[in-house]
Amino acid sequence: MSAMFEKVTIIGMGLIGSSLARVIKQNGLAGKLTAADASEEVCAKVKELGLADVVTHDIAKSVIGSNLVILAIPISGIKAVAEAIGPMMAPNAVLTDVSSVKGAIFEAVTPFLPDSVDFVPAHPIAGTEHSGPEAGLVDLFGGRWCILTPTSDTPIKSVEKVTAFWEACGAMIEIMDAQHHDLVLGITSHLPHLIAYTIVGTADDLEDDIKSEVIKFSASGFRGFTRIAASDPVMWRDVFMFNKDAVLEILQRFNEDLTAMQKAIRRGDAKYLEECFTRTRAIRREVMEMGAEGYPNPALMNQGTDSEKP
Amino acid sequence: MSAMFEKVTIIGMGLIGSSLARVIKQNGLAGKLTAADASEEVCAKVKELGLADVVTHDIAKSVIGSNLVILAIPISGIKAVAEAIGPMMAPNAVLTDVSSVKGAIFEAVTPFLPDSVDFVPAHPIAGTEHSGPEAGLVDLFGGRWCILTPTSDTPIKSVEKVTAFWEACGAMIEIMDAQHHDLVLGITSHLPHLIAYTIVGTADDLEDDIKSEVIKFSASGFRGFTRIAASDPVMWRDVFMFNKDAVLEILQRFNEDLTAMQKAIRRGDAKYLEECFTRTRAIRREVMEMGAEGYPNPALMNQGTDSEKP
Repeated sequence: MSAMFEKVTIIGMGLIGSSLARVIKQNGLAGKLTAADASEEVCAKVKELGLADVVTHDIAKSVIGSNLVILAIPISGIKAVAEAIGPMMAPNAVLTDVSSVKGAIFEAVTPFLPDSVDFVPAHPIAGTEHSGPEAGLVDLFGGRWCILTPTSDTPIKSVEKVTAFWEACGAMIEIMDAQHHDLVLGITSHLPHLIAYTIVGTADDLEDDIKSEVIKFSASGFRGFTRIAASDPVMWRDVFMFNKDAVLEILQRFNEDLTAMQKAIRRGDAKYLEECFTRTRAIRREVMEMGAEGYPNPALMNQGTDSEKP
Repeated sequence: MSAMFEKVTIIGMGLIGSSLARVIKQNGLAGKLTAADASEEVCAKVKELGLADVVTHDIAKSVIGSNLVILAIPISGIKAVAEAIGPMMAPNAVLTDVSSVKGAIFEAVTPFLPDSVDFVPAHPIAGTEHSGPEAGLVDLFGGRWCILTPTSDTPIKSVEKVTAFWEACGAMIEIMDAQHHDLVLGITSHLPHLIAYTIVGTADDLEDDIKSEVIKFSASGFRGFTRIAASDPVMWRDVFMFNKDAVLEILQRFNEDLTAMQKAIRRGDAKYLEECFTRTRAIRREVMEMGAEGYPNPALMNQGTDSEKP
């Protein structure tokens, strides 16, 4: 049986890139799999783990002859990589990525691509707080959404190729506009991460004796925030640099709501607080109902467990 | 073998009260267990589940003859209950509670107690986002911290009784000053809950089409916040009413830090963001090291799993 793609190149062998390599190998999705990473250290690790047929730190050359090229690097590096690989890409190849921001990506990549190469931006909503090639999991994408954000000019055949690829990795596909993606993910992902980083940072600034007790009694809500706040710093720095407008817009709404809460606490407005705390239960119910469509991911059961409370 | 206490009364049969009833029964800690709750509906459920030897909605009378009385009701109800049970309590009985705020509790309770009755405030750091007598778990307190906040006037023998009781429920004991407790828990628990309630409320205010997608793609960080924001509204309303000063103090620090983040995003200050996102990893490591002392609680493994990411 022939593979889905004759040759696939993954650029960037962190958590997502190395998880893709694992599932591509397991499901025989590539005749030949090339893994490229600018770091010699990462390349050595990828070789040691046997994650790809070819491992190289020469990113430009890594795409030669590939039918599918996947960018799995921090957003700030994408423009330079697109410039380097653009001239080397095979005619009719498809380029895709895994970035958490979609609007800025398209503008960064397309100027450097030959006419016959299509770019189909993708964002698999899956991951852990761990980083690096050792952290990858073969079933990271199983039952997870992968959002594609092609433009109206993107040829359907290329969207179909990327769809088929992600489905073969176990993901469920949703197609939406890049700006819409950036707003929705700004709420579900970027703002929560910003808040978690902030609250853990606030705790880090406390006097040492209180800080040690905060860590000791972290089970009561804080623990979950520390997990989110342990996510890759460079990746998240880039998210906020490249999804600035949507994040600032949502942050402003959040700030208004937090100010109202603060005022209610200061005034002792029990009725307001109870009403706010009651209506949020409905969203939890809806989230749990959606959960039946693929959560929790068994691969993450042992990593993500944080029971919290008062 | 004789039980640890001849007679125990639990007032309030929600998540915590009913979990206590379960572990008291399982470990034979009471010769006779009385469960009291103001709600007829809750009493009926407790009877149906067979959680206690006596079930009553007459709270005042429920404490007659008991050696240990445990208040497991929302904080705002504690003063009235203390006033009702004070005159009925047996000489040399010990009173304790499970509230998430400790400073305000002591002042609310002690004026109503006879001289021979000691109050030893307690706060088990354990729970789930579920409420009611059906939600209780026999091993909810296993491997969890329980913080006691006696004053310097509290007789040691009563502190020892409450310590022995919680240890027999599987908990680990820590003793600290009530004001210190309220500050530490303000950071680890109250602020995270306030933030989670706020962010889920912000999402709830969105236009319907965006809201449905926020729910659909909630895996990316937001999902964990919805779990926290599904916690009991009355209990949490009371936490913010009774730990107002500590919460407002911590909220102010958090707001300053969030404003600095916002400014860095607006200015595109990549260096600041990366530094903030890097230093928070150290706290996660310390939290995970603490975790070896008793987390995760197997009883909660199936409830608390939320894998998050970009």
